[in-house]
Amino acid sequence: MEKITPDSFVLVYRDRRRKWLVRPSETPKLHTHLGILDLASLVGKDYGIRVLTTLNDELVILKPTLEDIVMKFSRRTQVIYPKDIGMIIIKCGIHSGSRVFEAGTGSGAATAAMAYSVAPGGRVYSYDINGEFQAGAKRNLERFGLAEHVTLKTQDAKLGVEERDLDAALIDMGDPWELVKPVKEALAPSAMLAAICPTMNQCEKLVQTLHDEGFVATETLELIARNIEARTGMTRPSMFMVAHTAYLVFGRKLG
Amino acid sequence: MEKITPDSFVLVYRDRRRKWLVRPSETPKLHTHLGILDLASLVGKDYGIRVLTTLNDELVILKPTLEDIVMKFSRRTQVIYPKDIGMIIIKCGIHSGSRVFEAGTGSGAATAAMAYSVAPGGRVYSYDINGEFQAGAKRNLERFGLAEHVTLKTQDAKLGVEERDLDAALIDMGDPWELVKPVKEALAPSAMLAAICPTMNQCEKLVQTLHDEGFVATETLELIARNIEARTGMTRPSMFMVAHTAYLVFGRKLG
Amino acid sequence: MEKITPDSFVLVYRDRRRKWLVRPSETPKLHTHLGILDLASLVGKDYGIRVLTTLNDELVILKPTLEDIVMKFSRRTQVIYPKDIGMIIIKCGIHSGSRVFEAGTGSGAATAAMAYSVAPGGRVYSYDINGEFQAGAKRNLERFGLAEHVTLKTQDAKLGVEERDLDAALIDMGDPWELVKPVKEALAPSAMLAAICPTMNQCEKLVQTLHDEGFVATETLELIARNIEARTGMTRPSMFMVAHTAYLVFGRKLG
Amino acid sequence: MEKITPDSFVLVYRDRRRKWLVRPSETPKLHTHLGILDLASLVGKDYGIRVLTTLNDELVILKPTLEDIVMKFSRRTQVIYPKDIGMIIIKCGIHSGSRVFEAGTGSGAATAAMAYSVAPGGRVYSYDINGEFQAGAKRNLERFGLAEHVTLKTQDAKLGVEERDLDAALIDMGDPWELVKPVKEALAPSAMLAAICPTMNQCEKLVQTLHDEGFVATETLELIARNIEARTGMTRPSMFMVAHTAYLVFGRKLG
Repeated sequence: MEKITPDSFVLVYRDRRRKWLVRPSETPKLHTHLGILDLASLVGKDYGIRVLTTLNDELVILKPTLEDIVMKFSRRTQVIYPKDIGMIIIKCGIHSGSRVFEAGTGSGAATAAMAYSVAPGGRVYSYDINGEFQAGAKRNLERFGLAEHVTLKTQDAKLGVEERDLDAALIDMGDPWELVKPVKEALAPSAMLAAICPTMNQCEKLVQTLHDEGFVATETLELIARNIEARTGMTRPSMFMVAHTAYLVFGRKLG
Repeated sequence: MEKITPDSFVLVYRDRRRKWLVRPSETPKLHTHLGILDLASLVGKDYGIRVLTTLNDELVILKPTLEDIVMKFSRRTQVIYPKDIGMIIIKCGIHSGSRVFEAGTGSGAATAAMAYSVAPGGRVYSYDINGEFQAGAKRNLERFGLAEHVTLKTQDAKLGVEERDLDAALIDMGDPWELVKPVKEALAPSAMLAAICPTMNQCEKLVQTLHDEGFVATETLELIARNIEARTGMTRPSMFMVAHTAYLVFGRKLG
Repeated sequence: MEKITPDSFVLVYRDRRRKWLVRPSETPKLHTHLGILDLASLVGKDYGIRVLTTLNDELVILKPTLEDIVMKFSRRTQVIYPKDIGMIIIKCGIHSGSRVFEAGTGSGAATAAMAYSVAPGGRVYSYDINGEFQAGAKRNLERFGLAEHVTLKTQDAKLGVEERDLDAALIDMGDPWELVKPVKEALAPSAMLAAICPTMNQCEKLVQTLHDEGFVATETLELIARNIEARTGMTRPSMFMVAHTAYLVFGRKLG
Repeated sequence: MEKITPDSFVLVYRDRRRKWLVRPSETPKLHTHLGILDLASLVGKDYGIRVLTTLNDELVILKPTLEDIVMKFSRRTQVIYPKDIGMIIIKCGIHSGSRVFEAGTGSGAATAAMAYSVAPGGRVYSYDINGEFQAGAKRNLERFGLAEHVTLKTQDAKLGVEERDLDAALIDMGDPWELVKPVKEALAPSAMLAAICPTMNQCEKLVQTLHDEGFVATETLELIARNIEARTGMTRPSMFMVAHTAYLVFGRKLG
């Protein structure tokens, strides 16, 4: 059974709003408003245990999941939600060994989720012209051990994608239609192009461009995630929710 | 570039409602209401091409994705939708090498999606007391080359799960609360249990049982997938949709 | 207590899909696949009773509600759904005495709902250039006793609305932005303009025009109606639903 | 054209979050963070005008709609949303002259909306055992000129409803199934019972009771209201929304 090491990430969990993603080597003492937690003392122990703070408050030690990690990536750029990246991974058939293109590294959150899915043997090629974003994404990918499955390129994918015969492509940029031609050249025949579009106008223009470039089986959809408060005798949907993240557009390249 | 072989699956595609998942070796001539397609003549060619039927109707030859495959699994039992299985895979962090339990093989659709994600190096252990369902699932898994990543057991998981230290578990049965105890023993500490519950009552009873058994970070949600008709100047949501597939329940085991 | 007369409308009801809106004077014998019902024999009886067909099948006799009536209006044109017209009536504050403009009589369904709400003392002024539609709407309004609260004009509202100081306006046309100027002249200061827009593009162009014309408090929304199957121990949303009817746009005129 | 009087309600509007419902006689000077507005100087003027504060900030003077009024009712109890009350009014066919029962006066918000719809000639009979709530509702109804259409009774409707042959009934209480029998006696045959149920469990138990008591045409639904940000070239749903208010349950009494 896996033991916590000094460099392990642990998710210190109280409830959905109060949780901390930390490492004993970096944060030997975790200071919270619920008291101080001696993280260093967890080394050698199992995940999935209950611990007490100096104020005798109970916290839980979990092994972080992909979602825990991805949702912690810097939020300076658009966030990718689990519902959306899960759908993209399934619809594109991304799995171990897949070679995937990404336009718009951003915070690296989607990059990380795809890197996690293509390992081992696959690779994510992620382009972004913003060097600062890419530096941040690189730090995050390295921190979580995912950098080895990713090639970051600080260059403009609109001017050309250097890879060929790729299994899938994800576009997460404000003008996705500008990427269709270079991505088309980089994709294997029949491969899926996916795009994340916050607005209806982006969907409209992208789908038009996909048709113009001979893509088929285009599909536009949105996933609405609704939390349910399941409590005995008083089960109901949560009162508030994220109403919209982005539309997802898909299309398949013809040779 | 990958060429079509006699045993390759090809997706013959006209539009979202008219598509056929076939193999040249099994269906040398595909008879459709749009004319006959000479599938045998595709051997040695690339995917992603346009072809003509004997009635001069144009069809497209695509390489099937995981979604194309999973949605073709026998529908005698509850279907698993891409949106739901994508979310489960992300939230459970299922990837190459994961060892995953499944209660309720059913048609094997979710089994297939998870098998695809755990390969290589991982394994799905899927229990179902219905031998007929499992035989059908086995045929489908073999047909699509996924059987080697799956161990099927025709036995009642309520009586005990034999595996230990598993990375995740998926329950797709009518009485998921009956599975919580045996699944808890099989999961690694901190690992995620996921369940597919069509009704509110199932969610309620399952979440209560999860709390009783010391699971934490429980979450219940539903994903609503809404298709958009993105057409220049007249973009709108589709008029009809699948309103409900199932609620998804998640919780993490404490050691 | 109200008794059924020969000219009363009755809703013969079996379930949500099998129901008939008929009058004894017009249909003394109602022929259904469940047998024949002797409608004439209901005259003098109360609503809310159970009756038998010649095949001994039980049906229920209900007094039709506004919804029963409106949903039976001819469907050659766009339908108005109860959720949408209810929201419009509330947001516009339409009630007895209101004087309301409508552009696009169509089948007269929304006209009927508004006529029902403005009676007594109010009036709906409904314009449509399609004389055939208006003749159909007139027949329906007369049939259900609502015509006296409506003035139908077979003319193009884009060329001018003749009424002044109106309490509210509803636009249900493909190019609602063309109506903003004439409607603005017809509305009382501070009155609400409402529009029914199936596409995003219509919303966008209409809201822009409303702002250009000095309307304030603009709001665009959609109402998604989801049916629930409430059954003891197995409550869940219905599997299929109408995913989209139309967006509703609102704005208030400044003087 | 209607002029503002000292006792008129005016809605001072800046945007959807900054608005004030006030009367010149009560608030001659309105102090806001945007400066002071001389409300008294508006007497004799039209609605629908732009005015300046002492800080030269522009505000708009609107005539409050039913929605503006209802949403300002005290929120100590459950709120009624326009989408929900609009649907109830349409489905119950509530209009001028209707005699309607209400169980659970609460803040009086739904009472007010129904009073507005039944005037003139109709009446709302609203029961609540909480005298404090009813006193608050009475003040609000009087303030907005709606009290004359309402009979408030500080008594327990579960013990009996005194009215007979009513056109519709609305139940907004935590245990709506307890009201079905007394409401059934008070409704005219074929009349509609509506109920507002925040939880799935309430729906389930209420629908079961309705069936047990011979109600037909039962229906359970929820309305999800989603705001759209319609802006030229960047139209999209709002990021956050109210995900759930309540389920609506309907059923019709048999005689």
